[in-house]
Amino acid sequence: MTAMAAASVRELLLSRIRDVPDYPKPGVVFKDITPLLADPAAFTALTDFFAELCVEHGATKIAGLEARGFILAAPVAVRAGIGFVPVRKAGKLPGATLGQAYELEYGTAEIEIHAEDLSADDRVMVIDDVLATGGTAGASLELIRRAGAQVAGVAVLMELGFLPGRARLETVLRDAPLEALITV
Amino acid sequence: MTAMAAASVRELLLSRIRDVPDYPKPGVVFKDITPLLADPAAFTALTDFFAELCVEHGATKIAGLEARGFILAAPVAVRAGIGFVPVRKAGKLPGATLGQAYELEYGTAEIEIHAEDLSADDRVMVIDDVLATGGTAGASLELIRRAGAQVAGVAVLMELGFLPGRARLETVLRDAPLEALITV
Repeated sequence: MTAMAAASVRELLLSRIRDVPDYPKPGVVFKDITPLLADPAAFTALTDFFAELCVEHGATKIAGLEARGFILAAPVAVRAGIGFVPVRKAGKLPGATLGQAYELEYGTAEIEIHAEDLSADDRVMVIDDVLATGGTAGASLELIRRAGAQVAGVAVLMELGFLPGRARLETVLRDAPLEALITV
Repeated sequence: MTAMAAASVRELLLSRIRDVPDYPKPGVVFKDITPLLADPAAFTALTDFFAELCVEHGATKIAGLEARGFILAAPVAVRAGIGFVPVRKAGKLPGATLGQAYELEYGTAEIEIHAEDLSADDRVMVIDDVLATGGTAGASLELIRRAGAQVAGVAVLMELGFLPGRARLETVLRDAPLEALITV
């Protein structure tokens, strides 16, 4: 994609993200992507943008993070013709899993992956809607490496530039890229 | 799609669904779709199959049911060029929602939709992975009608033929079709 085409897609995507004040708690402005999902032109442009990044970075698998990450990552997998691997909250995957805990604002949470979904030949691109603190994305990279695969990178629709997600994730990314289509 | 092509796709899809015994509890055989998602040929064939049904039934919106329904429905929306509307568990959508409770084996659960995502002109196709008891799908149809839109139908990858989901859902479907790609 040319820089001009990318700028035009970014502008379209940004125009379809809605600010919802005081959600999920007072003082927080939630970035709601449902208007983007409801607009086929925007959702298709986003899918193509992500698919191009996956090809560019040599991804052989696409990991979507539950639950909004599923909505964005699955169409990319189909568009790029690359296998999809769900990263789920603990207890949701039926097969033999690897689990990884990560810190929340208060306490911890855990995500899981099917160990057999990845092999040593795989390069995995992680796709999610938002990079906030980087906790979930970082844990997913640990899971990918523990499953014996390589990390192709992390791609998110939105980076919340006022949070330290990028700095925190960079230590886990090592040399893999972090691609944020827009920064808000 | 010809009947022969459809039979061939069904055979492919069935071959990529794995039986996991004793999940989520002893005595239950869980139908795991993750091998299908990891196989680009199968996932693409499924997406095309669903997209064709959506066009055939005149859908103007596609509703995906959290969370596995998101994985199957979102690529169909992009492939068919139709807007995607998430149906989520209670408390997950940031805007003004309509909510609908439904019965679980023990107790009840509630799903929600953004009321403004649908209009009177919309015909909504609900997509999910499995039709079991029909509780979630039935509640989603109620939500669609309460939002003022029409139901184009329900499409699932798998119908569990030994459960009364179809019979229970038919009263809520009225004249709308229930399409199950495979019955297990």
